Amino acid sequence: MTAWERWLADQATAREDAGLTRRLRPRAVGDPTIDLAGNDYLGLAVDPAVREAAGAAALAWGAGAAASRLVTGTLAVHAELEDELAAYLRQPAALVFSTGYHANLSVVTALADRTTRVLSDAHIHASLVDAVRLSRAQLTVVPHSDVEAVHAGLVAAAEAGERAMVLAESVYSVLGDAAPLVELAALCERYDALLVVDEAHGVGVHGPGLVATLGLAGLPHVVVTATLSKSLGAQGGAVLGSVALREHLVNRARPFIFDTGLAPAPTAGALAALRIMRSRPELGALVRERVDGLADALGVVAPAGAVLSVPMSSPRAAVAAQAAALEAGLRVGCFRPPSVPDGISRLRITASAGVPEADWQRAVATLVALVKEHQ
Amino acid sequence: MTAWERWLADQATAREDAGLTRRLRPRAVGDPTIDLAGNDYLGLAVDPAVREAAGAAALAWGAGAAASRLVTGTLAVHAELEDELAAYLRQPAALVFSTGYHANLSVVTALADRTTRVLSDAHIHASLVDAVRLSRAQLTVVPHSDVEAVHAGLVAAAEAGERAMVLAESVYSVLGDAAPLVELAALCERYDALLVVDEAHGVGVHGPGLVATLGLAGLPHVVVTATLSKSLGAQGGAVLGSVALREHLVNRARPFIFDTGLAPAPTAGALAALRIMRSRPELGALVRERVDGLADALGVVAPAGAVLSVPMSSPRAAVAAQAAALEAGLRVGCFRPPSVPDGISRLRITASAGVPEADWQRAVATLVALVKEHQ
Repeated sequence: MTAWERWLADQATAREDAGLTRRLRPRAVGDPTIDLAGNDYLGLAVDPAVREAAGAAALAWGAGAAASRLVTGTLAVHAELEDELAAYLRQPAALVFSTGYHANLSVVTALADRTTRVLSDAHIHASLVDAVRLSRAQLTVVPHSDVEAVHAGLVAAAEAGERAMVLAESVYSVLGDAAPLVELAALCERYDALLVVDEAHGVGVHGPGLVATLGLAGLPHVVVTATLSKSLGAQGGAVLGSVALREHLVNRARPFIFDTGLAPAPTAGALAALRIMRSRPELGALVRERVDGLADALGVVAPAGAVLSVPMSSPRAAVAAQAAALEAGLRVGCFRPPSVPDGISRLRITASAGVPEADWQRAVATLVALVKEHQ
Repeated sequence: MTAWERWLADQATAREDAGLTRRLRPRAVGDPTIDLAGNDYLGLAVDPAVREAAGAAALAWGAGAAASRLVTGTLAVHAELEDELAAYLRQPAALVFSTGYHANLSVVTALADRTTRVLSDAHIHASLVDAVRLSRAQLTVVPHSDVEAVHAGLVAAAEAGERAMVLAESVYSVLGDAAPLVELAALCERYDALLVVDEAHGVGVHGPGLVATLGLAGLPHVVVTATLSKSLGAQGGAVLGSVALREHLVNRARPFIFDTGLAPAPTAGALAALRIMRSRPELGALVRERVDGLADALGVVAPAGAVLSVPMSSPRAAVAAQAAALEAGLRVGCFRPPSVPDGISRLRITASAGVPEADWQRAVATLVALVKEHQ
């Protein structure tokens, strides 16, 4: 056994002992289980028009973009998606990436360096944590949604003569709470800092996202990142902001430059989903109505996003409840360390607008009983 | 103007002054230009069976995987692709990622930490450079393909009691040369180190890749990363190695865990391409024959991969030759700083097996004349 094999075996044993081993469970096509675990918040990933558009793009363009966006991997459909995304999110320009991770890595690493001060919310997504690490910026982790701590950090950065960047999510993944975006944007304007807002869980559930609905879109000190794989039902990510920012990313963002362009099918799928999202605002309203109702039924606080987190007593209790739900025909998610900021395991239930009403009603009744039993 | 806007403007001016500004040029569907710029080495991205498979997957599964692979984003088609990739590359197991970047970030960050010594070839791909930075491992950049320098690094790591990892590409992107894999693998075995080989440019052009053809596949001290977006014509990446390694990545690789699964269309497209690649070894042979012939005609050294690099006198000369080629109906690529390890700009010509023979012959004649004129 090599040293590396021994190390892998030791790591596996430690995981097993802690009850934290994760295994992949492939799902079959047409699986009849009701999916309350995914991020297809509006049900658009499987919408017939979205499937059609994705399938047609694969037939028309091929299976892949076949090159970096900077070489020949920029397709007309990328440009179309970028134009329509920017218009819907009320931003001057958009740039599409092959994953949301690439979008977040790109915006931070292309803008921040050792001389930059990054004030990052404690609950920020892993991709932004990794982005800051990769950028080598000076990092200050601020307590979750603590506006005063951000204020103090910006004062300190201004005194030190550092360019400052503040990182937040419009709706946080695990707790589902909304960021104090208006206050953060005002502070960034006052201290000449840049606010980067990840709208992964905001777009769709809140139409064009919270940045846009709060009137913060298009401000020079507010940049938005978004995903194409949640409400937009496909794959990929985007950065939205000024034309100058877009051009800077095209020229400097290594995870954009040294990557193959997003494949034609998910690009066209996201575009079709965007058009449906724009024309059917009732989809977002239905998600909000469902998640509020479920929160009420379970006696937990309603989130700002589509996902309800239900705290459980242990990782094992969460896994047991998840297994029982599956037995009852419901697929729900489960947050366990290291995917949680506070170590508390949770059931994760997505109130997707894509679930038929009768299934949703049955799911709510089942979940209320299940959670009581396992919590 | 905010401080950030001024900074962006200054950066843009500096790029413009250096003649290094890049702009995206969307290509239209059915563009008749002969594509010698992309990475579709075997022509499989646009193969009818591959398009069909990708399109059918979008119709069957939807536009996206709709969740992380660990939640409900693992589809039966992912598992099928992983099984067949592992079998073809002669490895015990494979794990598919949504980009090659994610695969490289994952393997390094999940295996290496501050206590690990990484010996990285000077010409390694940007994604591996970023991976090492993100892992916070102790980095030693070794001169390009310098086996003695790797040897010395491994001796030093052994003396310091560090776990050591060596990073190489089977075929390097810019110069197109092959790594001394047999020697590197022997050194890694001797010093109990791990060799990570990026086969992005090896798979397809050399069948199952150089690691497999050299008899190094399946060794416990050799790990392979691959892309699904070059010879496999789709999008995504993969890590190939032991079952224990795969399980470790599933549990620990943040760019795997915190990402949406690869979309159904590129997954199924890559699977269809893999089956063609396996059944038609003559495609790889044709690429090697074409690239050798073109190198001979242009008087440059033939590469080990599908891409011929032709050094040019300046970034502007490279851009001018590229524009002239486009005028003549040929799309060729162009390597300029910061995409080159040595600062030398190059024309980048892909000898794809997907180009019809008559077009290829015309392309060779045109390129010989063009390069003479602009070099």
